[in-house]
Amino acid sequence: MTTAKPIPTSPWPMNAWYAAAWIHEIKRALAPRKICGKDVVLYRRSDGRVAALEDACWHRLLPLSMGRLEGDQVVCGYHGLVFDPAGRCTYMPAQETINPSACVRAYPVEEKHRLVWVWMGEPALADPAKIPDFHWNDDPKWVGQGGTFYGLKCDYRLVVDNLMDLTHETYVHAGSIGDDAITRNPFDVTHTDREIVVTRWMKNIDAPPFWRRQLGKPGPVDRWQIIHFQAPGIVAGDVGVAPHGSGAPEGDRSQGVNGFFLAAITPETATSCHYFWNFVRSFRTDDQSLTTELNVAHVNNGRGVYDQDVEVLEAQQRAIDNNPRQPFYNLNIDAGALWARRMIDHMIAEETGGPVAKAAE
Amino acid sequence: MTTAKPIPTSPWPMNAWYAAAWIHEIKRALAPRKICGKDVVLYRRSDGRVAALEDACWHRLLPLSMGRLEGDQVVCGYHGLVFDPAGRCTYMPAQETINPSACVRAYPVEEKHRLVWVWMGEPALADPAKIPDFHWNDDPKWVGQGGTFYGLKCDYRLVVDNLMDLTHETYVHAGSIGDDAITRNPFDVTHTDREIVVTRWMKNIDAPPFWRRQLGKPGPVDRWQIIHFQAPGIVAGDVGVAPHGSGAPEGDRSQGVNGFFLAAITPETATSCHYFWNFVRSFRTDDQSLTTELNVAHVNNGRGVYDQDVEVLEAQQRAIDNNPRQPFYNLNIDAGALWARRMIDHMIAEETGGPVAKAAE
Amino acid sequence: MTTAKPIPTSPWPMNAWYAAAWIHEIKRALAPRKICGKDVVLYRRSDGRVAALEDACWHRLLPLSMGRLEGDQVVCGYHGLVFDPAGRCTYMPAQETINPSACVRAYPVEEKHRLVWVWMGEPALADPAKIPDFHWNDDPKWVGQGGTFYGLKCDYRLVVDNLMDLTHETYVHAGSIGDDAITRNPFDVTHTDREIVVTRWMKNIDAPPFWRRQLGKPGPVDRWQIIHFQAPGIVAGDVGVAPHGSGAPEGDRSQGVNGFFLAAITPETATSCHYFWNFVRSFRTDDQSLTTELNVAHVNNGRGVYDQDVEVLEAQQRAIDNNPRQPFYNLNIDAGALWARRMIDHMIAEETGGPVAKAAE
Repeated sequence: MTTAKPIPTSPWPMNAWYAAAWIHEIKRALAPRKICGKDVVLYRRSDGRVAALEDACWHRLLPLSMGRLEGDQVVCGYHGLVFDPAGRCTYMPAQETINPSACVRAYPVEEKHRLVWVWMGEPALADPAKIPDFHWNDDPKWVGQGGTFYGLKCDYRLVVDNLMDLTHETYVHAGSIGDDAITRNPFDVTHTDREIVVTRWMKNIDAPPFWRRQLGKPGPVDRWQIIHFQAPGIVAGDVGVAPHGSGAPEGDRSQGVNGFFLAAITPETATSCHYFWNFVRSFRTDDQSLTTELNVAHVNNGRGVYDQDVEVLEAQQRAIDNNPRQPFYNLNIDAGALWARRMIDHMIAEETGGPVAKAAE
Repeated sequence: MTTAKPIPTSPWPMNAWYAAAWIHEIKRALAPRKICGKDVVLYRRSDGRVAALEDACWHRLLPLSMGRLEGDQVVCGYHGLVFDPAGRCTYMPAQETINPSACVRAYPVEEKHRLVWVWMGEPALADPAKIPDFHWNDDPKWVGQGGTFYGLKCDYRLVVDNLMDLTHETYVHAGSIGDDAITRNPFDVTHTDREIVVTRWMKNIDAPPFWRRQLGKPGPVDRWQIIHFQAPGIVAGDVGVAPHGSGAPEGDRSQGVNGFFLAAITPETATSCHYFWNFVRSFRTDDQSLTTELNVAHVNNGRGVYDQDVEVLEAQQRAIDNNPRQPFYNLNIDAGALWARRMIDHMIAEETGGPVAKAAE
Repeated sequence: MTTAKPIPTSPWPMNAWYAAAWIHEIKRALAPRKICGKDVVLYRRSDGRVAALEDACWHRLLPLSMGRLEGDQVVCGYHGLVFDPAGRCTYMPAQETINPSACVRAYPVEEKHRLVWVWMGEPALADPAKIPDFHWNDDPKWVGQGGTFYGLKCDYRLVVDNLMDLTHETYVHAGSIGDDAITRNPFDVTHTDREIVVTRWMKNIDAPPFWRRQLGKPGPVDRWQIIHFQAPGIVAGDVGVAPHGSGAPEGDRSQGVNGFFLAAITPETATSCHYFWNFVRSFRTDDQSLTTELNVAHVNNGRGVYDQDVEVLEAQQRAIDNNPRQPFYNLNIDAGALWARRMIDHMIAEETGGPVAKAAE
């Protein structure tokens, strides 16, 4: 039972494309997802396109995902109301006339770069051209096998913070990709209207174990981490190493190895999110066993590097929930995350005209 | 995080007889039940009558049901205070004088039609003549074996809604009692001050599998569903089939088979209830294996028809909790449920002089 | 269901020494404890002293206990900030200059009488001389093996109530230490500024089974229970029996057997606490098997006498949570507990200048 309190502005914009599923997950069946606090049911139509409807029957609120798919329409599992992919009710039990206002919300939905994207805000503004650039996911030059943390128990912005500052690798991922060199070397932050870029070059260092194996050569390296952020929850991190002196900082990466970590982070509730991730590479792209090995290095029953992040992120959210000390204090390393937050806040303010909830800031 | 809000009127009347237990469940032992938000302890006295006391010691609130029965009195398990069946404290540890105001509440209680009924409101108004008519439960012409869903996680009124409109059988119970004929055929709603009746006749139809087996004859049938509701939570549904043309609609059911589903739905909290059910029949009354079969058809580790309803009802309650869209939209089929709600609201308004909580409406 | 209420002052004083751990539990490792609603991390420094810090990093709130100990300092497991035992930040990643205000709170901490005591309030007031007298814990004349109920799910004051009135033994612990004689015999309450004492002598009675075994002699006994309370959560109970007529009430206990139950009860949250307990004796002090036996008699997978108390206390807390009837009604037997509550309230009022929360009173 809930009541009277000022509903805070949600800590996310609604007018944005959010990753809702991997394309291969949506079949001729009803797939529920909670996105930006809304229950959504996804399914594939007979023509192959994906539909996304509000997952609550107009009549008595039963999740439509508990019903069944019949052709391209969804039949409610309680009283049999039928809704078409546009959300219109096309059948009501025991009556000839259908209430013309009977409908559920239909969300604009697109498939691109191996992901299903849903637009949670004003449908008229849903421009497919604004879907984030994740071309690495299906560009044949890049190979990788990712996954999803559905229902990760933290504010989606904590994941953004995590990825926008990689000094945490030194402490959270010591022994694999972590390295004191990350902490010692300075970084630059630049930004445009659409994108924030955090660039760090670590020149003439000893490669950390992970990258040494990928490079397969001895000797000092130049290592780079160039992180691209697009609000509200898209991160693409260009990372790699090349032999020191082979010209990588100047633009010639031909002697090195290069990967991208890709993250599409979708709010589920104010304190949980879905984290679609991939790690793709442009070297040894035919080596399927390397693909599997890299997948397992990231997520592996709590022992992968992303599992370590999840442990920290969920503990941080619990600490925020228990701790009234707000807002966070910041370090120099937080410059990229702060710009990201600012960009998110700007999107929300533009859309609502009001201030932004500070739930987990 | 919670905030200031007005305490809502409870969504049930207090001045009503509520089923609290099956008679056979109350023995010479302390049996706790939460009814209308109140903790109650039931026990059988040495003279065989049932007592119902507030299940919280006057002194320190420990549930009396954690203590022990001594003769006809209850001894608290913490400091030994003793309460008689009228709720009066008859012993206090280490003191001669008993505070005359020391007592717990005693609730009027009656046994009738195989159920124990408790009156939760003003004791002076507890008239045994107002106990709902459930004579089918112990009338020798009717045979059946029911059960209870204790702590079913939904507002008790959602169960009423469910039973007042049987078109849901077509979708929730397809393959057993569900049938498109239910949805196709019209129904009538009539009402008096005390009762609402929803009547549906489906004439000259093919019997659904369940009823075909019970009838044991081929050929088209006339099927009936005549549902009687008494506020706040009593439903008796007269259901059956007879060979088409044998006169059932006109009153001669002698060639058919007839059953009643009986439901006594007792609020536990605003979002949970106890659902006492039975299904009785007047045919093959000596066939104990049929009795068992019908019991299992209703409740069977999640596979019975009532298990299907429970799954839907609890999902609906969760959707209501998550979804601010209120009140419900209604269809023609909801006419019976709407009359039932109106009768409940009227009872509450009469008793409180105020408006009714809309928690799950 | 909740309602409008002012946020209460916490039901405990902050300016007090609270038991946080047994000395042997704190090693060269990070040990988290929640005390008075605050997350604290304890560890032993290389010089053997114990440090106690706020268990939330200044930067992003991650519990420091998820990091690692490095020398005498704690390294945060997220971004590597380092804090010394005084709570000062001594390292920040990727920056030369350390924000001088960067710190976590350090709590005064002392080891005494086998326990680690933490002062949660104003550090300037933390006078080690005010640590409660628990000398029985490490006085060689007394022997015993205790334990802790960490996170016992009740207001710490309910445990105080429980120990300040032992008539509950008659009902909760019938068959071991419970005895009608406790209830029949009167008691005295005396108090000073620092201490409340409840004294009960039961003269010329048959010893209850537990004490009969310890005494090892037949015949009537004089039994005593002399309970010392010091606010906010310290209880030391002087208990024993001696042969009737051997002079115990007059001061000669030489023919009897004597024990002390010791309780240090530390608030965790408003509805949970840590209960450090011991039972020490001055007879058969070399008998290790008796030490073990007495430990098991108290706590034994739900079957010991303290397990019985825990069951009652947690049920009482649930009843308080569910039951708006406040405050408690009191009996004569509650005189000691009422004085204890008054002394606690006085401590809180002195420290806050305001009234005291009645959450579980």
